Amino acid sequence: MPANVVDAAAMERLILSSPFHAWLGLRLVELGTDHIAIALPWREELIADPTARYTHGGILATLIDLAADYAVAAKLGRGVPTIDMRVDYHKAALPGEELIGRGRVIKLGRTVATAEATVSKTDGTLIASGRGVYLTSAG
Amino acid sequence: MPANVVDAAAMERLILSSPFHAWLGLRLVELGTDHIAIALPWREELIADPTARYTHGGILATLIDLAADYAVAAKLGRGVPTIDMRVDYHKAALPGEELIGRGRVIKLGRTVATAEATVSKTDGTLIASGRGVYLTSAG
Amino acid sequence: MPANVVDAAAMERLILSSPFHAWLGLRLVELGTDHIAIALPWREELIADPTARYTHGGILATLIDLAADYAVAAKLGRGVPTIDMRVDYHKAALPGEELIGRGRVIKLGRTVATAEATVSKTDGTLIASGRGVYLTSAG
Amino acid sequence: MPANVVDAAAMERLILSSPFHAWLGLRLVELGTDHIAIALPWREELIADPTARYTHGGILATLIDLAADYAVAAKLGRGVPTIDMRVDYHKAALPGEELIGRGRVIKLGRTVATAEATVSKTDGTLIASGRGVYLTSAG
Repeated sequence: MPANVVDAAAMERLILSSPFHAWLGLRLVELGTDHIAIALPWREELIADPTARYTHGGILATLIDLAADYAVAAKLGRGVPTIDMRVDYHKAALPGEELIGRGRVIKLGRTVATAEATVSKTDGTLIASGRGVYLTSAG
Repeated sequence: MPANVVDAAAMERLILSSPFHAWLGLRLVELGTDHIAIALPWREELIADPTARYTHGGILATLIDLAADYAVAAKLGRGVPTIDMRVDYHKAALPGEELIGRGRVIKLGRTVATAEATVSKTDGTLIASGRGVYLTSAG
Repeated sequence: MPANVVDAAAMERLILSSPFHAWLGLRLVELGTDHIAIALPWREELIADPTARYTHGGILATLIDLAADYAVAAKLGRGVPTIDMRVDYHKAALPGEELIGRGRVIKLGRTVATAEATVSKTDGTLIASGRGVYLTSAG
Repeated sequence: MPANVVDAAAMERLILSSPFHAWLGLRLVELGTDHIAIALPWREELIADPTARYTHGGILATLIDLAADYAVAAKLGRGVPTIDMRVDYHKAALPGEELIGRGRVIKLGRTVATAEATVSKTDGTLIASGRGVYLTSAG
């Protein structure tokens, strides 16, 4: 895998320039050559169900997509449009739990890139996993 | 396809019982035997990118997932856990545009159901499409 | 959707130029502006399981992929590389049953196209469904 | 991850009991607690395109599906029905190349399991990757 072309400070600025990411309160945890880790704090509005109170699947999908996307972005120096994505849900995320999205590039091509991601609790419990394809030719 | 077991008023209550859906301001537009349509109004916090200002892919994924999920829920009378989902992105959704998520059941099984959904502008322009698999055996 | 740029005879030659398709014994059933239908006859080697004797999921995936691919190909006049695909399995296909793969373009873009497909029995029973993303910029 | 409940000899018998797998000439390469590796030899009928002569995407999808499926099967002692699968294509596989499918369980649940797989050349070059969801409650 090629080196990143942005450092952690520039990556965090890129992530937080998105109004939705700012509302979510995302935080860059780690930016390495092989992966990126982004933290999502819990907030009441993320709840899917008033009784079971687990975090909404759309929020987990968002974290899968953006972790995979920024793993690609670290190689290109800019965010990349998502062409398509898949998310598998493994376990409910409960109130108060910070979640960590970890993304990794599988294949970096000139037209498209494929990247995968996981969402875990801070103790490592797997909550969701998935992958996406990103357009790298635009820019 | 079997008849729905909930009416529009009960479905709208079910949808809006979710704190995330309430924050999104979702509105049930139509509940038929063959499909469900749910409207998502625009709000500033949904923006992905401060310059291009299109709606975040995670929000579109949320609308795909919930339109497909509630198409299944209409047949069972309860929300169903998403096992996995896929979203394809076709066109950017711009500020101020209300989006309509339309869901339809493809196959209703005793253990799992498959459903598909689209996200369109109110003029019919296709923004995203996808499908998900839902657990029907729980409950 | 734009008109097709190949007719049925040219499409059948394109399909059968593939050694794997020739081995499968594929047959073009219909080529319209909005969809393509391709028949897959049954053969003993397609069986997944010696006892239950249903058709292998990889064969159904092949039919989903090629029906979606040729729906795009009809618009471009050439086969297109698959970037990624998804298949949902709904029902077992049993020995002796001819299967029909029907493909339809969802979105035809300059870089990628999204297309969907179904696999059904000749009586219309749904066996599998899915979608793929195809590279349209090469060529 | 729990231990396997079948050994390599029983797994190879299970794999080869499928007529389609026998036609493909599959060979079990490795069965560990954490992954399974299955080899697919090349044969002329696997070709997708008479000019470029790369291996058909449906064949790669078959290898992704079965590597993921048998990773789950090793934990249960029986093959499991595929609910849905996704395949990403990274590079063409050319004539004469043996391909290795490697599968690994992501999450083993009582109703469904999620597993992932890769297809590589024997020198490690990545050809395709993907994941599937398998029904574990039947049987």
